[in-house]
Order: sequence, then structure tokens, then C-alpha cells
Amino acid sequence: MSRDDGMRVRREVLGDEHVDRAVERTSELTRDYQDLITRYVWGEIWTRPGLDRKMRSAITLTALVALGHFDELAMHVRAARRNGMTDDEIKEVLLQCAVYCGVPAANHAFAVAQRVLEDAQE
Amino acid sequence: MSRDDGMRVRREVLGDEHVDRAVERTSELTRDYQDLITRYVWGEIWTRPGLDRKMRSAITLTALVALGHFDELAMHVRAARRNGMTDDEIKEVLLQCAVYCGVPAANHAFAVAQRVLEDAQE
Amino acid sequence: MSRDDGMRVRREVLGDEHVDRAVERTSELTRDYQDLITRYVWGEIWTRPGLDRKMRSAITLTALVALGHFDELAMHVRAARRNGMTDDEIKEVLLQCAVYCGVPAANHAFAVAQRVLEDAQE
Amino acid sequence: MSRDDGMRVRREVLGDEHVDRAVERTSELTRDYQDLITRYVWGEIWTRPGLDRKMRSAITLTALVALGHFDELAMHVRAARRNGMTDDEIKEVLLQCAVYCGVPAANHAFAVAQRVLEDAQE
Amino acid sequence: MSRDDGMRVRREVLGDEHVDRAVERTSELTRDYQDLITRYVWGEIWTRPGLDRKMRSAITLTALVALGHFDELAMHVRAARRNGMTDDEIKEVLLQCAVYCGVPAANHAFAVAQRVLEDAQE
Amino acid sequence: MSRDDGMRVRREVLGDEHVDRAVERTSELTRDYQDLITRYVWGEIWTRPGLDRKMRSAITLTALVALGHFDELAMHVRAARRNGMTDDEIKEVLLQCAVYCGVPAANHAFAVAQRVLEDAQE
Repeated sequence: MSRDDGMRVRREVLGDEHVDRAVERTSELTRDYQDLITRYVWGEIWTRPGLDRKMRSAITLTALVALGHFDELAMHVRAARRNGMTDDEIKEVLLQCAVYCGVPAANHAFAVAQRVLEDAQE
Repeated sequence: MSRDDGMRVRREVLGDEHVDRAVERTSELTRDYQDLITRYVWGEIWTRPGLDRKMRSAITLTALVALGHFDELAMHVRAARRNGMTDDEIKEVLLQCAVYCGVPAANHAFAVAQRVLEDAQE
Repeated sequence: MSRDDGMRVRREVLGDEHVDRAVERTSELTRDYQDLITRYVWGEIWTRPGLDRKMRSAITLTALVALGHFDELAMHVRAARRNGMTDDEIKEVLLQCAVYCGVPAANHAFAVAQRVLEDAQE
Repeated sequence: MSRDDGMRVRREVLGDEHVDRAVERTSELTRDYQDLITRYVWGEIWTRPGLDRKMRSAITLTALVALGHFDELAMHVRAARRNGMTDDEIKEVLLQCAVYCGVPAANHAFAVAQRVLEDAQE
Repeated sequence: MSRDDGMRVRREVLGDEHVDRAVERTSELTRDYQDLITRYVWGEIWTRPGLDRKMRSAITLTALVALGHFDELAMHVRAARRNGMTDDEIKEVLLQCAVYCGVPAANHAFAVAQRVLEDAQE
Repeated sequence: MSRDDGMRVRREVLGDEHVDRAVERTSELTRDYQDLITRYVWGEIWTRPGLDRKMRSAITLTALVALGHFDELAMHVRAARRNGMTDDEIKEVLLQCAVYCGVPAANHAFAVAQRVLEDAQE
């Protein structure tokens, strides 16, 4: 897949506002990395037809909870809603995570998701 | 949900052979724990209607890859197939995991899944 | 054990102020999860007679340091003191964690504990 | 604390058989590391008076479960029994770990502990 | 960078024997993943000029110890020697890891490295 | 190595400003721990001649990214520059981490490093 496909899917999933900001902040330090994830994460993985985007969001949310990346989790809760996941399904993903990743990870994840959903209602 | 519902779903997802062995091996050390996971993990989480079982399998596979529980992963690759996930979809879950959990976790996960699929074809 | 036993022990260990706030903030997203941890974490595990609460606090503190859940750690340092752990014993738990979990985890843990103990002295 | 104190406590906790084997296998690769852990882990931490050995075992078991070091866990289940922890208390430590570290870690931990206890009964 | 560059560097670092086996075992499940890591991990990262291969080996060894991927660690201890790292330098990497990743991870890592170095001397 | 050697190297790597603040903030809770890391981490590991400090920085950065200790990472990006690592080499370390530790860890790490480098330019 091309860089253009990657950038298109990245924008569809993460939103123009987020990607514009990431592009704008790109520096000498982060340029190669930004290019790599656009081509690789977005152009090669998220563009694959084998799973729908809602399923890819569920996988991504779970990986972030399991690995403790809660800043990134907020961004991907928003992405999950953009990918058609309902708030109730987000709840179910986090409940399933609670038993497999432990209660402290789930506590943190529910707190993050709660803030994202409240922000979205304003 | 009751202990009976939990045991029924546990058997449907993990297979009678696996659960019979777990029940048979239950000891004074593991009795309370076995009861706890039957009632909570299976009776309270896997029985919830909000996500289908294939989605719950995708979440579980991802958590196991992210946390490095590869023995448990083999069991849940088999469970994923029982829950209707195709081998191609299992591949896609692991590819999505590769970018979020890192390449060493994905290497190990693909090796485990490969052995499970080969065993299933015999 | 019942939901009521869980709620009673949760209040004894985490304090009324914390639990009142958790109950008050409960939303459609978090209701089932809050109920699950009250019954499961508190009603089924913390209520068990086989270990005293100080020992359960030591285990919980260690798990949080090892897994890097430092927000949750602050709450459980306060809980450990409520469970009768002295400040000197909290220090010993974190020193033991330093060698098993690595120095960066211990650095973070000591900084969190330091803030909690200073707040408690005011 | 001296190297001698460290070696004495290491032998008391891990057993002569284990430590003799570790000493015997020491190579050019591992010599400095073996010396370092005898002096620091054993001579500086396990010798401290502020917690009894059973409590230090509970902390160590929890760290190993949380971090997924299950080979090392077998050695420290044996050490915990040497430090006066009953089989029932080991069970309680692992149940407490289940909720904080997640069910896959607890599954693995109970399987390891089960094998150690069976070996000890022979 | 091209797929060919990736495959060349992969062979130089991991050895023909290992890569031949990986290629031979490639299945429908693992084909896309194998292609992805050849192009990205090897073709895009290991081919970059900004760090020498010994430094890249030190980083890789550390990541594997920190994340607990000890099967993969054996392969990369061999790769580190192929990249010009001496056995004494491998020892130093693992000692540095001991303080940052904790003693259980270092124990496991030294045991793995010991086996690799013994095999290499036969 | 002595406590004095440890303190000297700690100051050379982390900077006087940081170490003065750590010394000044030392409390009854943290005194033994501060002493332990000065003697052990700095006096025994960082003083070893077998690897140069730039290599030790690369290992430390990687461990912190892999384990998710991003507060500590900021301090060690500054230390890496003090140890002679160029901004371009820091970028390469983080790119190598991206494939082994996963993209979310790398996202966080690049954001931390970006802030440190911007602060240094002011």
C-alpha cells in the first residue's frame, strides 16, 4: 500500500484534527518515525481487508489497556467511536479486558473512557 | 449469572476435553480459584450479550499476546476457531497485534498459532 | 459473599470518602464494572479470612508497582496505612520491589509514597 | 551487610541444593552477576529486619506473577514454604494476584504452584 | 529500502541457517507477516546508517530482556556475537539490564546467554 | 566500588542540579533507597569499564521505553546527551525500539524526547 492510502485511512480513523496536529508538530526528530507509521501501521495494517475497522479498534483498545498506554487509549476510544463502535460495546471491551489484564488496568481504562465520552457529549 | 451458566459457556468456548481435564485436576490448592473463574470470567463476562463471541475471542487473543501469556494463547486460538473465527481472521488479529505489541510478541504468537492450526489439520 | 459484604470491606480499606466519590461518579459506562469489582475484588477476595489485611496490602502494593499502575498505587498506600502497615513497612515493601521490579519502578513508587505520606502529615 | 551474610540468608531461603548448583555453574559470564545478587538482593534486602521473611516471600511471589517470571516462581514457592508460608497462604497470595494481575497470570501461577506442592509431597 | 536489502541484512544478522528455516516454514498463516518484517524491521530499521549494528544489538537485547521474550533472546545473543559484540560486552548489557529490568529478568537472561555461549564453544 | 564513586558518576550522568534536588528531598522514607541506588546502580554498574557511557545510555533508554517508564525517560534522554549521544542517535534508538516494543511505546517515547530536545534549545 502507498503512503497516500496510509494517510487517508489514518485521517479517517483518528480524525483530521488529530492528524493535522501530528503533521504540524513533525520535527527533525520525529519525521522518519511519522513517515514509518503512516506507511506501516496505517498503509499496511489498518488498510487490510481481512477485518472490519470496529474489530481492529477492539484489538487496538485491548492492546493499549494490556500494555498500560492510557494516553494513547483516549485517542483510540475516540477512533473506536468513529469506526462505529457504540459506547456500550466500548464498555464490553473494557469489561473483557478487566478479567484478562487485571483490575488496575481496567480501573484506569474506564476512567479514561469516561472522560472521552463526557467530552463527546458536550 | 449462575455457576451453571458459567460452566456451560466455558465448555462451549474451551471444549469439553479441556474443561474435563481442568475439573479432574482440581485440587485443594486450585478449588476456590477454579470456582471463581467459572462464576466470574465465564458466568459474568463471557455470558454478557453486548459482544458476540468472535469479538470476545479477538480481545482475549490480543490481551494474551500483549501480556506474553503464550501457553494460554494456544488454548484461546483453539477457542477462537470454536467461536467462528477463520484462520485468516486469526492471522489479521496477530498482524494488528504486531504493530501495537511489538515484533517479538508477534513472532511468538505466530509460532503458537501455526502449531495449533497444524495440529487441527491432522 | 454478598455485595453488601464487598461494599463494607471496600469502605473499610479504601475509606468512605474515596468510595462515596466512586459511587457518585458511577455512570452508564461504569455501573456494571463498579458492581463487578464490589462483588468480586472486595466481596470475594478481600473478605477471605486466609490472610490478614496488612498482607493483602503488601501483595496489592507489589502488584501495582510491578505492573506500573502508579495512580492506583497512591490510593493503595493510603489503604495500606488504614490496614495497619507502618510507614517503615511501606518502605520495606518498596525496597523489596526495587530488586524484583527494577529501579525505575521503585523510583516512581517511592515518589508516589512520599507524596502520600507528606499529605497525611498535613 | 557483607557477602557472607548475603550467602547465608540466600542459603536459608533458597536451600543449599539450589545455591550449591548456582555456585557450581558460575562461569566467566555470570560471576560478577552472581556476586552482585549475593551482596545486594540477599545481603542488603533480604537481611533487613523491617519485614519478616514470610512477608518478603509474599512480595516476591507477587512480583514474579505480575511480571510473568514463572520459572523463577517455582523456586520462590519452595522458598515461601521454607519461610513458613502454609500452602493455604500460598493459595491466598495467588488469589489476590488473580484480581490485580489478571486471570492468565493466575492460571499460570496456580499451575506452577500445583506442580511444586505435588513434588514436595512425594 | 527494498525487500532485497531487508533480506540481505536479515541474513547477515540472524545467519543463513536461521533465515532459511524461517523461509522454509512460511505458511499461509505467516506469509504476510514474514514479508512485513523483512521489509520493515530489516529493510527499514536495521539498514539505517545512524547506529552501528553492535549498538542495534544492544538495544534489541535490552528490549527482549525488558519485555520477557527469552526464546527470541537466544537468537539475538547469537546475532549480537555476529555483529561483533564480545561475550564480555554481552555480560555488561545484561548487568545494566539487571538494575533497570529487575533481578528475575536478569536471572533468566543470564541463563539463556550462558546456554548460547556454551553451544557456541562446542 | 565506593559510595563516593557512585555519587560522582551519578552527578556526571544525571547532572548536579538533578542530584542536588534528589539529595535535598531525601526523607526518612527514601534515605536507605537513595543510598542503595547510589552504591548499586551508580557505584557498581555505571562505573564498570566494559561499556562506554553512550552504550549504557542506549540500554537504559531502551529499558525505560520497553517498561513504559516515561517520566524517568525524560531524565535519561538528558543523561544520554550528557553522555555524548547526538539527537540523531537518540532518534535511532527510539526507531529501533518502535519495532521491538510496539508503536504505542514509541509514540510516547518520541513525544517525551521531543519535549526534552525543545527545552534544551531554549
